[in-house]
Amino acid sequence: MPNILDRYRKLIEVHLPQDIPEDGAEIYQMLRYCMGWSDQYGNLTNKTVGKLLRPSLCLFTCESVSSSVDKALPAAVTLELIHNFSLIHDEIQDFDEKRHHRPTLWTLWGIPRSLVAGDVLKIIAESSLERMLHIESAERSIKCLSLVTEACLEMIEGQYLDINFEGKIDISLDQYMKMISLKTGALIRCSVEIGANVGSSGNVEITNCFRRSGSYLGYLFQITDDILGVWGVEEETGKSVGSDVRRKKNSLPIVHAMTTSSESCRNAMRRLFAKQELLDTDVLEILDVLDHADSRRYCQDLAEVYAEKAIAAIVEANIDREKLTDYRDLCEYLTVRKF
Amino acid sequence: MPNILDRYRKLIEVHLPQDIPEDGAEIYQMLRYCMGWSDQYGNLTNKTVGKLLRPSLCLFTCESVSSSVDKALPAAVTLELIHNFSLIHDEIQDFDEKRHHRPTLWTLWGIPRSLVAGDVLKIIAESSLERMLHIESAERSIKCLSLVTEACLEMIEGQYLDINFEGKIDISLDQYMKMISLKTGALIRCSVEIGANVGSSGNVEITNCFRRSGSYLGYLFQITDDILGVWGVEEETGKSVGSDVRRKKNSLPIVHAMTTSSESCRNAMRRLFAKQELLDTDVLEILDVLDHADSRRYCQDLAEVYAEKAIAAIVEANIDREKLTDYRDLCEYLTVRKF
Repeated sequence: MPNILDRYRKLIEVHLPQDIPEDGAEIYQMLRYCMGWSDQYGNLTNKTVGKLLRPSLCLFTCESVSSSVDKALPAAVTLELIHNFSLIHDEIQDFDEKRHHRPTLWTLWGIPRSLVAGDVLKIIAESSLERMLHIESAERSIKCLSLVTEACLEMIEGQYLDINFEGKIDISLDQYMKMISLKTGALIRCSVEIGANVGSSGNVEITNCFRRSGSYLGYLFQITDDILGVWGVEEETGKSVGSDVRRKKNSLPIVHAMTTSSESCRNAMRRLFAKQELLDTDVLEILDVLDHADSRRYCQDLAEVYAEKAIAAIVEANIDREKLTDYRDLCEYLTVRKF
Repeated sequence: MPNILDRYRKLIEVHLPQDIPEDGAEIYQMLRYCMGWSDQYGNLTNKTVGKLLRPSLCLFTCESVSSSVDKALPAAVTLELIHNFSLIHDEIQDFDEKRHHRPTLWTLWGIPRSLVAGDVLKIIAESSLERMLHIESAERSIKCLSLVTEACLEMIEGQYLDINFEGKIDISLDQYMKMISLKTGALIRCSVEIGANVGSSGNVEITNCFRRSGSYLGYLFQITDDILGVWGVEEETGKSVGSDVRRKKNSLPIVHAMTTSSESCRNAMRRLFAKQELLDTDVLEILDVLDHADSRRYCQDLAEVYAEKAIAAIVEANIDREKLTDYRDLCEYLTVRKF
């Protein structure tokens, strides 16, 4: 694990639960399950699922510009809770049955309760940000709130574009990049920006470097995710090989193959994507088209391009050498991660 | 129409659309349809559906304590949009097919898109509140935001309790009153309180009178709603007579009959509520039990008790006679309304 994903984990895990009531109400039990703190029967597990990428980024960028993480803690908590809110609703929309090898919320509690649990988590996420008022001015707190609101709106707009892509196959690269910049990119960008913003007390020049870097990091993260969705190893990702292909998801490998392959290959893909359900042989046929188009190489190269851009933008912010190394390590990890 | 629901309508209708983008994006078209501003094909209708009760209350209480509505306009917009967000998600959960005689969002655009549209509307509602920063201090704006957040959380918790009531029939009156105080009451209370808060520049004594009155108004509103859900006239409510009975909804008439009827009547109700679907004759049998229990009279009396309490709490705030008359008229209307 790169230092950034390790260094702040314990601290985040201490602060994350603070606004989720510990009373017996079932809806809060659902949220504790969703976060990984308990199993589906309410037994404590003492761990949080997920990489905690967003809060870690937020604390890292704050520390990079101020040598302290304290000011960014409320925002870090908010960002991770918002990420989980979006997952709860996404899983309902996509009928996803597993996350991190665990049954998703709606498969255990049903859709109506899970929809409501997502809504509650979103509200708790916002109220967590109010803790910033104890350590920051009302003006700076409102600025951060407005960054979070901006990112949330973009994230949901991206989710909508993604839903609209379903059942289509001729998505252009531009459309795809726009979608991921919103759906995945906005919250990652916000995580990188908001830490720098509070850490630098709103220094516009510094904050903008981080904002740009965060945008690139968002692309990097999602492109690697798309690679794993097609070529990931089940034991590591928790998803079967080719799972995104089987779900006919318009991820980057598919979009790339559809924009670069021969007309006959594209027609084969169109025919397969038009089927109600894909057989194993269909999945293999599509994987074969991706191989011919060298889509994996294309995606990997693009991920590396964005890693370089993300690093270059941070260099401009003039952070110290050690922090720069940490950020490089994170970018490197995000291009080669296996889960 | 009572003056309160008439006086501010045009003003609210001017301000409501300001944060919903007019671009061609389908998700915003969905929101315009939901608000009533266009039909399902995107043709303008030039009207907003609904009574606009919450924003009207907010502007009224602000005007009652400050002789101006201006400070409360951003909050008024926020409250109406949040109300609509909650309706979009509620309709998905309850599979409601009509609202105000129009097809609900999910019946036209499907569940995934409507879920996302609800999420977007919630975020727009919050960002609308940021307009308060142009006219109020950051501190007062944050206070209002935290009132809205508190009310939203209670509203969703109430929605969750309501989902939990489904399929049950032995709900106590206390459980029922708790549920409606959250699901319906919280946002109405917030509407009454927030206008008074900004109008009085945060005068605690005045604000508390309005807050208490708003809580009573919430009960009043929901109890009348429950009466209409059972005995309302289809042409006026847009719902068939006994519609809440047919849906086996645990509304106040049912809860009352179940707590006051004879054991044999209660057993008959239990047997009917256990059926998968209710026939017309089943509905008539339940209506008969409600008649014997005199549940309609009980509900009507309780509505009137809450109307009196709501008025008494406002009297303590010492507003001028004309405004007090307006508020009385509204309470009177809410006890006798037909839709």
